[in-house]
Amino acid sequence: MPVTRNRRIVLAARPLGEPKDENFRLEEVSISPPAEGEVLLRTIYLSLDPYQRGRMDAGPSYAPSVEVGQVMEGGTVSEVVESKADDLRPGDLVLGYTGWQEYAIASGKALRKIDPARAPISTALGVLGMPGMTAYTGLLNIGRPKAGETVVVSSAAGAVGSAVGQIAKILGCRAVGIAGGQAKCSFVVNELGFDACLDHRSEELGESLKAACPKGIDVYFENVGGQVLEAVVPLMNPFGRVPVCGLIAHYNSTWLTRGVNRLPLLMRAILVKRLTFCGFIVFDFNAQLPEFERDMSQWVREGRVKYREDVREGLENAVAAFKGLFTGQNFGKLLVRVGPEPGGES
Amino acid sequence: MPVTRNRRIVLAARPLGEPKDENFRLEEVSISPPAEGEVLLRTIYLSLDPYQRGRMDAGPSYAPSVEVGQVMEGGTVSEVVESKADDLRPGDLVLGYTGWQEYAIASGKALRKIDPARAPISTALGVLGMPGMTAYTGLLNIGRPKAGETVVVSSAAGAVGSAVGQIAKILGCRAVGIAGGQAKCSFVVNELGFDACLDHRSEELGESLKAACPKGIDVYFENVGGQVLEAVVPLMNPFGRVPVCGLIAHYNSTWLTRGVNRLPLLMRAILVKRLTFCGFIVFDFNAQLPEFERDMSQWVREGRVKYREDVREGLENAVAAFKGLFTGQNFGKLLVRVGPEPGGES
Repeated sequence: MPVTRNRRIVLAARPLGEPKDENFRLEEVSISPPAEGEVLLRTIYLSLDPYQRGRMDAGPSYAPSVEVGQVMEGGTVSEVVESKADDLRPGDLVLGYTGWQEYAIASGKALRKIDPARAPISTALGVLGMPGMTAYTGLLNIGRPKAGETVVVSSAAGAVGSAVGQIAKILGCRAVGIAGGQAKCSFVVNELGFDACLDHRSEELGESLKAACPKGIDVYFENVGGQVLEAVVPLMNPFGRVPVCGLIAHYNSTWLTRGVNRLPLLMRAILVKRLTFCGFIVFDFNAQLPEFERDMSQWVREGRVKYREDVREGLENAVAAFKGLFTGQNFGKLLVRVGPEPGGES
Repeated sequence: MPVTRNRRIVLAARPLGEPKDENFRLEEVSISPPAEGEVLLRTIYLSLDPYQRGRMDAGPSYAPSVEVGQVMEGGTVSEVVESKADDLRPGDLVLGYTGWQEYAIASGKALRKIDPARAPISTALGVLGMPGMTAYTGLLNIGRPKAGETVVVSSAAGAVGSAVGQIAKILGCRAVGIAGGQAKCSFVVNELGFDACLDHRSEELGESLKAACPKGIDVYFENVGGQVLEAVVPLMNPFGRVPVCGLIAHYNSTWLTRGVNRLPLLMRAILVKRLTFCGFIVFDFNAQLPEFERDMSQWVREGRVKYREDVREGLENAVAAFKGLFTGQNFGKLLVRVGPEPGGES
């Protein structure tokens, strides 16, 4: 029976601060067959990532906003249902950016085939995909850690942070994580092999971070901002590097809060310690995809980089899962299983 | 008659905020003859620079503090009066860091001979010295401007800023200065050849900066911090670079002020625009001294880099001159003529 109906989640209204249910709308629409060069895809996994919060806002960022009424943006692993693209056949598995929906029409050129024999297909959205490559390129190009240095990473149990710390260990560094709660901290140390992991909810974060970094901090891989950044800066060593990857503590706030203006203090630290703060997004390093795929798939195969996924079932649960990202409800790479894997349970 | 008495200015007490007269003490002390390897120097020019304010504070910075009771730190051009160092003879002119005093004992190894035939000897403290090399190394290594890009520099009429903009012009960039008051702005455009210069006291700095930088800002050479930085950040182009050289707007403040916390906004700009902020001090690039001396002395000789000095007479006027640095009272490289040049008027 040909697919003619599609369920999707669109941006219903731009959020002010924290995204709420009313900012999203689950709707059922008709879907046309693929045109020449296009394919019809069935979504298997949808990736939920903090950057998607930024796409919900109007105004300039490094990528265009999602318009009100448009499908929410997101990376996906899908199965080709029907193909009018040269290189793709029904049953092929592909990585794309087809968003929060059960089916999608996409240009064959915007998709990349996934080999299900290489690794579980969900990893194309995690450790072997955008988050893993974010960790790899940001750490190597901007962090530039040397053996014996101390690397601190926030959101250490998350998709990016967990890879950052494990790569730092492979490079011979001391890896110190910061995560939310004891369960995540234990996982980061006991499962991922970080040297230490601190709970950002603790009131003594500054003190415990100091104890965990007896030689100071050479690289801080920034995923969160806020109070974690404030605790890190005084411990940075001269010539320290800060890849700025994300600022999840602020994504739901207005960016401008009253209180103490900490900007001059940060600038003073940058000046006096000769720190480098450098923002990046993974696309800036697209040329390094081959090295990333070679190194990371080898490390995963050898068990030197482990990963954890937090998989929610069904498109209708995407909004709740996404909202939880900003309060640390997820534990590992957050995915929605929108439909079954081929050969898997429905 | 052998020199046995010395007048010097010491740190009398650490300032809170703005330095005041009571933070300094002019005193006369006896001076011993040089020991083996040392020389007795007569100070001709004393350099007054914003970084000296930082040395008056306790606590960690990139260089040790001046202790209470110690001579205030400062670069000097001096004449050798008496020498027990192998390579130096009476009458030689040397560059050193002998501080705010009329005479000094220094190790011969800590001094560098100046050739008075090359350029006026005062330039060893300015365009051909530390400030010029600060401009050169910070702009080339961190700013990395490409022809056609827009370079903005604050304190554009000052020793460092004036060189930054002129080097940017030599490299084929658009150079836009920010300075205090119309006289300085006219000088920066008409004498130094910047494309534009804006008065930071204007209430419309953001608007006028936008008009002066129609293609945005690629490099911002930061000398001041505060509201100038706030006006610049929204105009920075993707992948912009910010060499952080100084923060004079904050040197007399407590660094922590109440009001709006602008730190998250800066971090957002760094992330979204992939900016690089990198602090430095000139000593980090000591290895580039030969290139600097070659290029800058050629540019000065050819008239492609011009400089302006603001020379005050007599050690007893150093404190007033120094205090004026932080309110922009100086116009050009601030120097104190502590004693006459050889062959000059006494």
